[in-house]
Parts: sequence; structure tokens; C-alpha cells
Amino acid sequence: MDDIIFGKNSVTEALISGKREINKILISKNIHTDNKIEKIKELAKERGIVFQFVAKEKFAEYAEFNHQGVIAQVSPIKYTDFDEFLELPHENSSIVILDGIEDSHNLGAIIRTCVCAGVSAIIIPSRRNVQVNSIVEKTSAGAINHIPVIKVNSLMNAVQKLKENNWWVIAADASAKDNYYNVNYTDMNFAIIMGAEHAGVSKSLLKASDFIVKIPMENNFNSLNVSNALSAIIFETVRQKLTKGQTRK
Amino acid sequence: MDDIIFGKNSVTEALISGKREINKILISKNIHTDNKIEKIKELAKERGIVFQFVAKEKFAEYAEFNHQGVIAQVSPIKYTDFDEFLELPHENSSIVILDGIEDSHNLGAIIRTCVCAGVSAIIIPSRRNVQVNSIVEKTSAGAINHIPVIKVNSLMNAVQKLKENNWWVIAADASAKDNYYNVNYTDMNFAIIMGAEHAGVSKSLLKASDFIVKIPMENNFNSLNVSNALSAIIFETVRQKLTKGQTRK
Repeated sequence: MDDIIFGKNSVTEALISGKREINKILISKNIHTDNKIEKIKELAKERGIVFQFVAKEKFAEYAEFNHQGVIAQVSPIKYTDFDEFLELPHENSSIVILDGIEDSHNLGAIIRTCVCAGVSAIIIPSRRNVQVNSIVEKTSAGAINHIPVIKVNSLMNAVQKLKENNWWVIAADASAKDNYYNVNYTDMNFAIIMGAEHAGVSKSLLKASDFIVKIPMENNFNSLNVSNALSAIIFETVRQKLTKGQTRK
Repeated sequence: MDDIIFGKNSVTEALISGKREINKILISKNIHTDNKIEKIKELAKERGIVFQFVAKEKFAEYAEFNHQGVIAQVSPIKYTDFDEFLELPHENSSIVILDGIEDSHNLGAIIRTCVCAGVSAIIIPSRRNVQVNSIVEKTSAGAINHIPVIKVNSLMNAVQKLKENNWWVIAADASAKDNYYNVNYTDMNFAIIMGAEHAGVSKSLLKASDFIVKIPMENNFNSLNVSNALSAIIFETVRQKLTKGQTRK
């Protein structure tokens, strides 16, 4: 299942970005054409990509996904090499590190949030974390084509390497003393570690981090969804960068 | 399907909050007991609620949900009356208004975010919006029991009534000129309107709003998930309230 992209928006995004090699596009004979389908056909023609109209039976195996009658068969996602990424010039850049995210929808939402907030890369571990599958691609609404994803064997090694390269490492943890908005994010390269839905960031990574921050919670109700927690933190970093030097309103 | 709650955490939350009348709890004979199941049994006993161990066949009709072998049969959710809510004392309070949210997972995540951020109520329209169903309850991780949900026939009437009662109304819209963090949220009662996943906030509501704000987007990639967009905005309001009077770091 890792080699298809489904849904009108995701297929369109993949065609526009050109970052994934598309082998073939399948369109169900049973769906009504609309602007989006016409756009997909047009883009496919421009790029010399085959599209086929197929009987709905062909889509039976994808019944559990909301494919909207459109599927692209693609080459597997190309992960970015960590060392190559580090060698690029970085200035006031940010990375998001995911420590054990299990839910595909959460990973998709996180990828969208990262692209919208201008994050430079996402690092996931090669084990004990959901990988970039079709559901992630779909939930990301095509955002996966706009951000490098780096897969590493050891998050701990990755964190050490980031620190050696003068990146600051910030972990989000519910029991932290400091609130996330009290860190100044405007003048450094930084990585934010978000933990698993239940377990949070692992102890060894918390220990290796330069800062540990929390989101202040009302109502003693401490169970923000991980993608929503990331959104609060990452857009605070955006706010700080965009308002730097301005008088506070 | 609107009268069951499924999953260990959701059932536990419902038992603790006591806000939903629980008729019966069903536990599958086929699951291994654990701390959470024991806690559910203990709470049910304390509250005089019947729990039954049933064969897994009994759970067949709920197969599409991640019920974890635990279901509570409950009375339907009690919506809060809008007029009664308005008559309560409010000071620096916030409301979230949802204009046409279609996805149950999004509504669940929004409810969690609202409870964590101390929002006073959520307003949804009685039509063209997902209602509070079992998936919403599950995704909300029990948060639904900690916040009043108000259902209104007309969002426009609700917005007018809020304005008459000195609430400020702020709509989120991608084409707004002002960034969301340039509004001062610290000294007023305010309502934030979030729009449907695709269509956004309806034009008539935008027109009726006191402010329209956007989240600045990098990469020209303007498709933040609605729950993530709300999270960025609502935690900015929390940040402003908590740092009011402090020197900016």
C-alpha cells in the first residue's frame, strides 16, 4: 500500500510538485468528471503520464480509503539523507522530530502543519513510528511533496548530531516547568521533539534536549492531540519570527 | 450510533465526569483486563452502574470503531441552551463557533483543544455540520464531557446575539489582511468562528464579524487542517492572557 496515492487533491499535488515518479493514474469510470478530474487529466497529459479509465471493481481493494475514484501508482517516497540535509545552509531554520507517533492521521496533519509553518524537515525514526504510507499522504493533502522527510535509525544520534552542528533541541513535555512561548526562537536553528500520543518524548531524549517546554493547560485536562500541540508551538515560533523587532501590540 | 461511547479512555471519562447518564457498560470477554478496565469496573460499582461481560459477537456491529472491547450505552448528549449560557457571568471568556465542519475526527480534535485551552463553549449549527456522534466522542478523548456544546438553528442569529451581549466576534479566513496574533484578546469576551474544511467561513458570517484574521502561511501552502488552525489561534489567546502585564522575553 505504500506505492499508491489516492484522492483528487493528493494526486493533483503529486502531479504539480513532480517530486514523486508517477507510473500511472487510474480514474474510475463510475465517477462524474469535475474540474479537479479535468485538471488531473490535463496535468497528466502535459507530463506524459498515462491515465486509464477503469471499472470500479479495480478500486475494490482500496475500498477502505477515501480515494474519490482517483489513484496514482507512484514510486516509493524518497527520504532525504540526514547528512546531506545538515550540509545545506541553514539560518533560523526549524526541524520537527517525531518520537514514536503511531497514528497515520496525526502524521498527515503534522506534515501539513509543518509545511504551512515553513519547517525545513521532519525527522522520524525507522522503527516504532508510523511511516509515510498512503493514509499519511492523503491526510497530508499533498503537503508531503513539499517537505523533506528524514528517516534515522537512532533519534538519539540524530539529536547529538544536530547539537554538534549548533542546532538547539527543544522537547515538548507536559510536565515541563517552562511554557513554550517563553523560549526565544528568533535567532537560532532549532529542532522541536514531539512525543508519542500516549508515552510522550522518551526520557533519554528529554535528557539530551537543551530546553523542555509545555503548553499550559486549563481544566486539568492534559490531553491535547499531538498535531494540535505541535501547531500551537510551531506557529508561536512563526509569530516570534514575523514580529521580531516590532513593538508589541 | 449516537447513544454509545466506546474505548477505555472515553468510557472512563464519562464515568468520572458524571455528565452523561450511563445505562450499561459492556466489556468483551475476549480482552485481557488491565488497569484501565479495572478502573472502569471500580467506577461503575461506585456509581451503581451495571457492567456486563459479553461475548465478542456482541461487539460485531461496532467493528468499524476502535472500541478496545469496552462500550457504554448512554443517554444522548445534552446540548446547552444558548440563552442560559449567555446569562451566566462571563469575563475574558472565549467561545468557538464552527461553521460547517464535516469531519468527525476534526470535531473531536477541536473539542479536545477547546477544553485544554479553557474555551467556555462550542457552538455548532443544527444543520450542515457534523453532530456529536460516537466518533466525535472517541476522538475527543472524553473532552466532550468537559465543555458545553450549544446547537443553534442559525449561526447568524447566534453571532448577532453575541454582539448584542458585548461579545466580540472574530472570524478566521485565509484571505484576511490581519494576522491572528495582532488582535488583543486579553480584555474581552470573544467568539472565534472557524470555517468548513473546504469552503471556509460563510460570507455572511465574515461580514457580521468584528475582526477577520488569518494565520500567515509559508510556502504558499494554504491548507492547514481546521483543528490545527484553531489550535494556533486559541493558544495565542491563552498566551496573551497568561503573559499580560509581563515584560516580553
